[in-house]
Amino acid sequence: MVKNFLKLSEKECWEEYNVLLQEYEKFKSQNLKLDMSRGKPESCQLDLSLKMLDEVNSQSDFKMLCGVDVRNYGICDGLPEMKKFISEVTGISADNFIVGGNSSLSMMFDAISFFMIHGANGCMPWGRQKNIKFLCPAPGYDRHFAICEYFGIEMIPVKMDKNGPDMDFIENAIQNDSSIKGIWCVPKYSNPQGIVYSDEVAKRFAKLKPKAKDFRIFWDNAYFVHDLTDEKISIVNILEECEKNGNKELPIVFYSTSKITFPGAGVAFLACSGDNLDNLKRMYSIKTVGFDKINQLRHLKFLKNKSTLYNHMQKHREILKPKFDMMIRLLKNEFGGNPILSWNEPKGGYFVSVDTYQGCAKETVRLCKDAGVKLTCAGATFPYGKDPLDSNIRIAPTYPSIDDLQLAMELFCLCVKMAFLRKKLNLL
Amino acid sequence: MVKNFLKLSEKECWEEYNVLLQEYEKFKSQNLKLDMSRGKPESCQLDLSLKMLDEVNSQSDFKMLCGVDVRNYGICDGLPEMKKFISEVTGISADNFIVGGNSSLSMMFDAISFFMIHGANGCMPWGRQKNIKFLCPAPGYDRHFAICEYFGIEMIPVKMDKNGPDMDFIENAIQNDSSIKGIWCVPKYSNPQGIVYSDEVAKRFAKLKPKAKDFRIFWDNAYFVHDLTDEKISIVNILEECEKNGNKELPIVFYSTSKITFPGAGVAFLACSGDNLDNLKRMYSIKTVGFDKINQLRHLKFLKNKSTLYNHMQKHREILKPKFDMMIRLLKNEFGGNPILSWNEPKGGYFVSVDTYQGCAKETVRLCKDAGVKLTCAGATFPYGKDPLDSNIRIAPTYPSIDDLQLAMELFCLCVKMAFLRKKLNLL
Repeated sequence: MVKNFLKLSEKECWEEYNVLLQEYEKFKSQNLKLDMSRGKPESCQLDLSLKMLDEVNSQSDFKMLCGVDVRNYGICDGLPEMKKFISEVTGISADNFIVGGNSSLSMMFDAISFFMIHGANGCMPWGRQKNIKFLCPAPGYDRHFAICEYFGIEMIPVKMDKNGPDMDFIENAIQNDSSIKGIWCVPKYSNPQGIVYSDEVAKRFAKLKPKAKDFRIFWDNAYFVHDLTDEKISIVNILEECEKNGNKELPIVFYSTSKITFPGAGVAFLACSGDNLDNLKRMYSIKTVGFDKINQLRHLKFLKNKSTLYNHMQKHREILKPKFDMMIRLLKNEFGGNPILSWNEPKGGYFVSVDTYQGCAKETVRLCKDAGVKLTCAGATFPYGKDPLDSNIRIAPTYPSIDDLQLAMELFCLCVKMAFLRKKLNLL
Repeated sequence: MVKNFLKLSEKECWEEYNVLLQEYEKFKSQNLKLDMSRGKPESCQLDLSLKMLDEVNSQSDFKMLCGVDVRNYGICDGLPEMKKFISEVTGISADNFIVGGNSSLSMMFDAISFFMIHGANGCMPWGRQKNIKFLCPAPGYDRHFAICEYFGIEMIPVKMDKNGPDMDFIENAIQNDSSIKGIWCVPKYSNPQGIVYSDEVAKRFAKLKPKAKDFRIFWDNAYFVHDLTDEKISIVNILEECEKNGNKELPIVFYSTSKITFPGAGVAFLACSGDNLDNLKRMYSIKTVGFDKINQLRHLKFLKNKSTLYNHMQKHREILKPKFDMMIRLLKNEFGGNPILSWNEPKGGYFVSVDTYQGCAKETVRLCKDAGVKLTCAGATFPYGKDPLDSNIRIAPTYPSIDDLQLAMELFCLCVKMAFLRKKLNLL
């Protein structure tokens, strides 16, 4: 029988709290040591790609069709065959791609670094302009925000709803403020809420008329094939849509195989058009003699094509889906009639985003930590780590085993309740 | 019988030229297609590391001693075991290292990028200062110069002699000009001259007292184990030496396995101290969740330790040495008594640097190119591609087979002579 904590009297709060406290102490005595702070695959997911490591060995043929020996220097923007592969999967023309190293985050950093030094569209370099800003749909990805902080870019949070970020706000802001130079988007299974940008939202992105001629959309399609359901969820091809609207210079799109093969040794991709593409290719031709082409070949031989890739992702799903299902079931059981916690039910991606009662997120995370379960810091999903409501927590259920996850989630539910009661009882 | 072309009469020049022209036409009719433009290993050198690809496979153990699964995210600054390995080889403490991706050039670019954005030693970011400058020992490495051009850093060439760059000039320049922020050094087997910085030169570097508090030495030790002789050539440990002199923030040191294992899939290293190390680690922790640790493991298992590494380098030497020997022999035979060409005899590295008669380098390269042999552009070894004497050419003998190299060098010798005669005869 789920109690609605909002309706408890003070006395009932105390009674409830004392019961929970005893349970909490039991958890503590178990000396748990679990990490749910980052979207890391579980070890058994990594095993799914082990065979990839055998695909390239001392007996392999290293000559590509283009005549290049992948072991040697050269081909700075990626193997043509690898561009063809990612083109087939994404529907974006192979010519639009740069195939990078093992980190799409690095490519985002590099792109922003380019604009800091050289600017875009003939405008003054971002680094020479005063007080430039990015729009940051929030809750969002803390590493995006960290890049902004690193470059001294001021962040403006943008509210999210079930269709994506608040487009009215975005359109209004960028039409009026020429210091706004960019926006971070995770358009499919957004980090952390798992929101899929609706076609309408994406199309409004493609039609943006920014006051800043050097405004850019950073479209981090990190979870493009990371589905948890059978539903075929596709989002607008933003590059194509922008092109249609005379906005081909707006978007820069990112993909990665980090959560397809190995997070420590995947392949990243960047796609864009026009000057962006020329400029970023030129930048990379100065920054490196080429990315790791042997690893590109390894991926190519293992992932092969769209259909093989989707089969492979199905195996990830078989590991991930039960974890998400268990979590959601547990949250429903524990908070079904108790409005002190709300959550999303993602159809893909790596996170479940929850909102505690206002002012309880930090305390919930602290309580979990003190009992041995590390969560993403409360606030991390907002620019500058500041959640105005101290309410959002990103739960990353993928890394622990399902048994550990169950344990951790039981503790989490307990801590959510305790944090609420501690607030109510002025124990914070 | 070698003729001294400087002593030829005009008539003799014409006679000589016409003979050479016939030979040249014969070369042309062979439709050569050889590339000696870059310091690329020959394919058989790449074969030396093939077994490395078998070292990590689907059956491998991926857990490091520190508990990390190399396949997953994490450990941004490199595997501890990899740091220990490079420390053993270089004599620099493991704690000073960041182990990177496949490109040391990228790490140089990233370090400069950091200073552009954040500056050093509390000074204004380089990108916000007006007209900053780098000292560029020349002839030098064109990719270093390209990085300066990319970041809008003015380059000041510095003369080289057999002990390294002109230290009087350097000391004087940086003591007086606070806009000089850095210097490029390839201290062992310099690109392209193969010069080894003497201990005296290195020690003067370590004692520099730059007017700019944000001055940095970029010490690209690209050829640290790339010996061509039995002579044990070691250079000063610049990090240690700078530390002794209260200058620990000056040097940033770079290494790479590109020419040890695979140019397309090696491992790069950066070493520095104090704030530099903290800052660059922080930068990388924002730029990436980690470099390719599986490739680090692969290298670790293959290269093992200093002694195994030196054994491996011996195999490279067995392929490279005959090429260098043949080249030098040919140059001596062709130009022994003919001062229109001088050259170095490197004890390691990847290049032979030659100086043609003044004003003849571009023409020599053009003639070679028209007959199917691509050399590094004349001028490329100087900042902005401008060799004031139009004299220096970098020859990269490593990529072609020794037979092809012989052919290419015969053509080269011919072209050097023709270029001189064409200049003398006002045919340019």
